[in-house]
Amino acid sequence: MSKKFVFAFEEGSKDQRDLLGGKGANLAEMTKIGLPVPQGFTITTEVCTRYYEEGQKIGEDVMEEVKVKLAELEAKTEKKLGDTENPLLVSVRSGAPISMPGMMDTILNLGLNDDTVKSMARLTNNERFAYDSYRRFIQMFSDVVLEISKSKFDAIFDGKKEEKGYEFDYQLQPEDLKVIIEEYKKLVKAEIGKDFPLDPKVQLEMAIEAVFRSWNNDRAILYRKLNGIADSLGTAVNVQSMVFGNMGDTSGTGVAFTRSPVNGENKIFGEFLVNAQGEDVVAGIRTPQPIDELAQSFPEVYKDFMRISETLEKHYKDMQDMEFTVERGKLYMLQTRNGKRTAAAAVKIAVDMVNEGLIDQKTAVTRLEPSQIDQLLHPTFDQEGLKSAKKLATGLPASPGAACGKIYFHAEEAAAAVENGEKVLLVRAETSPEDLAGMVAAEGILTARGGMTSHAAVVARGMGKCCVAGCSAALVDEEKKTLTIDGITYKEGDYLSLDGTSGTVYEGRVSTIEPELSGDFGTIMKWADEIRKLKVRTNADNPRDAAVAVKFGAEGIGLCRTEHMFFDEERIPAVRRMIVADTLEERLEALKSLLPFQKEDFKGIYRTMGELPVTIRLLDPPLHEFLPQTDEDIRTLSAQINVPYEKLAAKVSELHELNPMLGHRGCRLAVTYPEIYEMQAEAIMQAAIEVSRETGKKIEPEIMIPLVGMKDELAYVKKVVVARVEDVMKKEGMNLPYKVGTMIEIPRAALTADEIAEEAEFFSFGTNDLTQMTFGFSRDDAGKFIKEYLNKKIFEVDPFQSLDQTGVGKLVEMAAKLGRQTRPQLKLGICGEHGGDPATIDFCHRVGLDYVSCSPFRVPIARLAAAQAAVKNA
Amino acid sequence: MSKKFVFAFEEGSKDQRDLLGGKGANLAEMTKIGLPVPQGFTITTEVCTRYYEEGQKIGEDVMEEVKVKLAELEAKTEKKLGDTENPLLVSVRSGAPISMPGMMDTILNLGLNDDTVKSMARLTNNERFAYDSYRRFIQMFSDVVLEISKSKFDAIFDGKKEEKGYEFDYQLQPEDLKVIIEEYKKLVKAEIGKDFPLDPKVQLEMAIEAVFRSWNNDRAILYRKLNGIADSLGTAVNVQSMVFGNMGDTSGTGVAFTRSPVNGENKIFGEFLVNAQGEDVVAGIRTPQPIDELAQSFPEVYKDFMRISETLEKHYKDMQDMEFTVERGKLYMLQTRNGKRTAAAAVKIAVDMVNEGLIDQKTAVTRLEPSQIDQLLHPTFDQEGLKSAKKLATGLPASPGAACGKIYFHAEEAAAAVENGEKVLLVRAETSPEDLAGMVAAEGILTARGGMTSHAAVVARGMGKCCVAGCSAALVDEEKKTLTIDGITYKEGDYLSLDGTSGTVYEGRVSTIEPELSGDFGTIMKWADEIRKLKVRTNADNPRDAAVAVKFGAEGIGLCRTEHMFFDEERIPAVRRMIVADTLEERLEALKSLLPFQKEDFKGIYRTMGELPVTIRLLDPPLHEFLPQTDEDIRTLSAQINVPYEKLAAKVSELHELNPMLGHRGCRLAVTYPEIYEMQAEAIMQAAIEVSRETGKKIEPEIMIPLVGMKDELAYVKKVVVARVEDVMKKEGMNLPYKVGTMIEIPRAALTADEIAEEAEFFSFGTNDLTQMTFGFSRDDAGKFIKEYLNKKIFEVDPFQSLDQTGVGKLVEMAAKLGRQTRPQLKLGICGEHGGDPATIDFCHRVGLDYVSCSPFRVPIARLAAAQAAVKNA
Repeated sequence: MSKKFVFAFEEGSKDQRDLLGGKGANLAEMTKIGLPVPQGFTITTEVCTRYYEEGQKIGEDVMEEVKVKLAELEAKTEKKLGDTENPLLVSVRSGAPISMPGMMDTILNLGLNDDTVKSMARLTNNERFAYDSYRRFIQMFSDVVLEISKSKFDAIFDGKKEEKGYEFDYQLQPEDLKVIIEEYKKLVKAEIGKDFPLDPKVQLEMAIEAVFRSWNNDRAILYRKLNGIADSLGTAVNVQSMVFGNMGDTSGTGVAFTRSPVNGENKIFGEFLVNAQGEDVVAGIRTPQPIDELAQSFPEVYKDFMRISETLEKHYKDMQDMEFTVERGKLYMLQTRNGKRTAAAAVKIAVDMVNEGLIDQKTAVTRLEPSQIDQLLHPTFDQEGLKSAKKLATGLPASPGAACGKIYFHAEEAAAAVENGEKVLLVRAETSPEDLAGMVAAEGILTARGGMTSHAAVVARGMGKCCVAGCSAALVDEEKKTLTIDGITYKEGDYLSLDGTSGTVYEGRVSTIEPELSGDFGTIMKWADEIRKLKVRTNADNPRDAAVAVKFGAEGIGLCRTEHMFFDEERIPAVRRMIVADTLEERLEALKSLLPFQKEDFKGIYRTMGELPVTIRLLDPPLHEFLPQTDEDIRTLSAQINVPYEKLAAKVSELHELNPMLGHRGCRLAVTYPEIYEMQAEAIMQAAIEVSRETGKKIEPEIMIPLVGMKDELAYVKKVVVARVEDVMKKEGMNLPYKVGTMIEIPRAALTADEIAEEAEFFSFGTNDLTQMTFGFSRDDAGKFIKEYLNKKIFEVDPFQSLDQTGVGKLVEMAAKLGRQTRPQLKLGICGEHGGDPATIDFCHRVGLDYVSCSPFRVPIARLAAAQAAVKNA
Repeated sequence: MSKKFVFAFEEGSKDQRDLLGGKGANLAEMTKIGLPVPQGFTITTEVCTRYYEEGQKIGEDVMEEVKVKLAELEAKTEKKLGDTENPLLVSVRSGAPISMPGMMDTILNLGLNDDTVKSMARLTNNERFAYDSYRRFIQMFSDVVLEISKSKFDAIFDGKKEEKGYEFDYQLQPEDLKVIIEEYKKLVKAEIGKDFPLDPKVQLEMAIEAVFRSWNNDRAILYRKLNGIADSLGTAVNVQSMVFGNMGDTSGTGVAFTRSPVNGENKIFGEFLVNAQGEDVVAGIRTPQPIDELAQSFPEVYKDFMRISETLEKHYKDMQDMEFTVERGKLYMLQTRNGKRTAAAAVKIAVDMVNEGLIDQKTAVTRLEPSQIDQLLHPTFDQEGLKSAKKLATGLPASPGAACGKIYFHAEEAAAAVENGEKVLLVRAETSPEDLAGMVAAEGILTARGGMTSHAAVVARGMGKCCVAGCSAALVDEEKKTLTIDGITYKEGDYLSLDGTSGTVYEGRVSTIEPELSGDFGTIMKWADEIRKLKVRTNADNPRDAAVAVKFGAEGIGLCRTEHMFFDEERIPAVRRMIVADTLEERLEALKSLLPFQKEDFKGIYRTMGELPVTIRLLDPPLHEFLPQTDEDIRTLSAQINVPYEKLAAKVSELHELNPMLGHRGCRLAVTYPEIYEMQAEAIMQAAIEVSRETGKKIEPEIMIPLVGMKDELAYVKKVVVARVEDVMKKEGMNLPYKVGTMIEIPRAALTADEIAEEAEFFSFGTNDLTQMTFGFSRDDAGKFIKEYLNKKIFEVDPFQSLDQTGVGKLVEMAAKLGRQTRPQLKLGICGEHGGDPATIDFCHRVGLDYVSCSPFRVPIARLAAAQAAVKNA
């Protein structure tokens, strides 16, 4: 049997969304459950795919099927396309599997021509209506199908109004409209060199093709890119017999939600416009009435509509966004779909529906968009205040939230200002680890350079702090302490406001609203926790972040980095002394002075986390990151730590690497200088023992060795670590259980995970580095060309944002399988930036990881995404 | 049944080399075929492995078995260990599966003590012999087992000789020897606080353990590392009843080869020492007689030996290296093994043996060590001349061969000197692409910095030119044009000689000998070609290298890089104009002026290669490599190409990358600037068409797109290339078949090779980059820590030298399989540096690649290795 390309509404159902598009599937469903839907048929999305595959042509076999379905439609409606007795008029609309509101094209009133318009006038007994419909049709068809600018038609239309001295459209008389129509037709002829097509069958074929074509118009492409919709889905085309909301005062049209999409209140929410077509509501030309007023003006229709509305919500078990038309007192449903809603509304509706018995808890947790609930976790701008705010520039939305404060250009000065009680924004060309104190103190961070994974962005997200990064319009002069945008210069102490969710920079002060984490939100998160299989940990390397994460529901620390600690002002001299040490003795001496600091770090974290697991990663970055790079800074440091300039400069040059990302770092440092990891292992174990004694809590340290590529390398480093750990326990006379595991972040480690698992007691996937090496992309450098890849549609999404499941994911899956082959109880987690990305979390669930770890402020998102993954893959 | 740990010689065979070691297996074999072998038994290599696994202890079960075998040996020889009537004396020797001559320890005359020495004296009627054996035994046992320095015994011995006024050892009388023995025993007591062990059973157990211990002595470890022998193999221990070559003038000992190991001549080759033990021959204290002289002095023994020698060679079907002893006129065979030989001897012996019908051609090709035949392909130093040469320093053996010439410090001056008829060595701190002309002109290259994969090393190997790199003792002052080594300064024009095979630098002139490629060598290579399945191509990007490779038997070019061409003096300005171009027009203009150059490059190569396939890789390196980096150089260039300094400096800074290896290069350049690849595609196709017309040859261009990670990326770039190729063919009115394929050098490409193969018409594995990314190692930076990894035995071999088959190999295998799944006829090759490594070639054969590609001078090695792989894996 050959494939079916066209479905009458009564032949489809809501489950055929991929084939019929969202609109088509819902029209079919409404038809099936007996609601008043104007009849019609749907041309499938597969035809769209074929259209592009076959060089933008619609197959003749498809058009044959369309003709058959059209004949059926004519039979059912007892009307005929182009018939002068009883002409059929249809709408032709797009409808993709995933809603893309307003992005593609629609044509109404198709079937009108010089003959059928007369029939319409006769049948409706309303010549003005008929000719107005006709002129609207010509204008719309010419715009969408013939690609003649709408403004040229508007000029004719407005010219006629002016000529006649009319203020409103409805003042135009049939004779005026006929003149306009003739002028429209002349315009078409002049523009395309051909007559406006008057044969309705030709109109239909052209309109169908135009809808397919509109799948790839610029705004549709952009919308898909922004919303992560695959270009390959294609759109369906719905051909539906017209009903008219503009047939006089007993007609009208409206859109409504079954509940409030703003706050979720269980009360119908919508608008209605008397004597109008749907486009008028959407276009916002006239101000519609609230839907409640239907009760007065159309009591019967209102009753019907309320009943249908309830039916639909119960049927779909979700809040519906409906379009309807009343034609001479009779209600027609034109569309229903699950309604878009704010995060707050989504939470309330989901919880209410569970309480109403409409859905179960599992369904409820799927009703929140994880990326959306970020809104609920950060301060937001007061919408009123925002209306009057002056938008200065846009950068990358590097870390969500809203913030307002006085701008400072140096970390120390920002920190000092905060100590004086000021609210501060830190503004830098770009940030470096030395700016950390200032970043901690500030309300928000603005940088002129750097991408979504720049230092500022990563650190800010980790702290849940608002950050706008890479704002290239911002010229930052750190020396003069000025920020210049568009020729206007802002000085230290001037107020700015930042929206890290959208990447917007505002002038002056905009007030913010704090988030609320209890109530319905708390309820739904509790349900999510009961449903999910994946544990959720956090990436945190200090007690403050750890406490925030626990508040947000983190069940442990998946990645506690130990390098940020090294940058602390008190310690960095010792770190530097260690690096420039000539002998093992000197190095041991420097490490000895670092030990008490590290121990205190870990004690603070163990005190905060109690018995929750904490995975501590030993030192990872290349040593040169701890040394200054410019000649001037080297001289300053030389004096500071009392090391001859020449020696220091030689060390800096010796440590210089062409590709530090692939250089002497991670466990490679420990192969060369085992004493560094020995010190860290000692600090961890001492801290665990002391906090155990202090609190009586059972602490089981998890020590993680980074950048492992080979089993023998891990074996070597593990032996060093274990020896010191055992030493400490023996000296302290206290044994704690502990685990030594590894990051899986080098492709080779994933490929040989069966071997690695002979040594590793757990794996944590470091998908940042794994992505860098699997793609051969340096995160620091790839910004430039990844943009080009997104533009040229080589990437659907940046692989540093959402895990590349095909390539990098294959390694993760392989490593999980090979690792568990060797060690069935191997604990598996992910601690890259991807750990907070919902699509990645779904992947992690599917490949059977034990936990994901993400920045504190993404913990709730991860909890929810994990629950959704459990529901989706049940 | 429990495992057997000890084998009597008659229980084993030559096929049990892994278990019994080489020596043990051959002693067993000789016993089996009825040769006169002193009886004994072998303790297996598994015992050695257990010894290390169990904390350096020999299991009691093993010692039980030893006792049983000892009893059997005693029964067979009718002697008894420690017996005063008829004492058994034994030797205890190591014997690993792979020969490690002289690396481990041996003990002779074990079983002697104060009692048995008397019996020996009585039985041999030679008191001097008995006591001399005893004192030798004490000295050897103390050295090897008790670890007391040999020199302390020598002091006593020499003291006694001096005291007595003796000139030769044999002048010592039994009484002298007895005194010496007592002093030896005192020395032992003083050194270890215990008496010398007099119980022969204790001696035996201690000796066995000492042999196992010697497996991990420093020189054995070093030898294994140098020869790529796995540490896990272990050694066997052979316990064998003693025979004595030092029982007077009817006794003696010798070593002999069945053919000459120096030149392969089919004539017995060896040495013989009357009245001596084997150690005396090896130690070189006395000068032995040529073996021929046996015919006179021991005619019967000589006849026997010649017969046995022939038997052994026929039995083993290979040239044998034998040790024998004559005890009072009776010949005993102590050892036989396949003899080591020079490359020249290996070639002659293999060909001769085929001609003699001893082996077939397949066996013959396995008789050459591929790494050894490199000796045959490059000039070597005249051995005589070398004897008097002064060795100055040692660097890395970066590219083999010998060279002699006047030193020059700048590429242009070196080139100019060559034009004046001088022979020149280029000496640089390190080389860069701009030194290319000088490197081409020079006989050899010496650099002070850089590793085995530095620019100098890679380029020199590519050209088959001698290179010593990273010679850190060489202080090069390029400005002053001086080279200082060990305080002595050499100036421009001074003569030096370089041995790139060993990495040695010699003062003055040493004469060289040119290689010979025909004759037996040609014969064996012809056989190799008939046997191998893998094709062998070469990496070459100019007609000169291509011609050399063809002479060496290359069957095509597997990698023709296009970037070296860009550095040419005539072109680099246009390249730089292209890079700094602000607009597409400017860039196209610059590219247009490069086009004729590129076309000529390709025409030259096509003319040289004729119908052999040529894979041309489009531009790969990041653009900043073509721009100067220092401020001064930027200023110079600015004037040169007439681009403002600020603009040029800004461009350099814009192109700067933190990790250029993972940056904007390869096909990523073409995604941003498609016009670069368009120009290259045009040049290739034009060249192919013009040379086709000119020569009538069928040319089928293979265009290779580098650094592909994703199918869609390849699809995009391929489309650009194909469009231009088709354009050219249309314009020229000539159609040529052509292929567009890709490098597989990004892990993701290997992981998704099934998708990539939808676009790629061939794969070429770029294992250099693939190794870098799979390990996360930057070749430029990893030198430092890879050394540490080799030292700490984390690596057995540098993964940039020989492909890491476990990890990187897994990706290669996966990609080959996935690629052919999509496209069964997909052509697969390898073009990384590994393409010339025999172990890698074996791997390539096993995973079913179609060809390997390597530098011209490695082509014969690859041909041979490919044949060996075919034989080995048949």
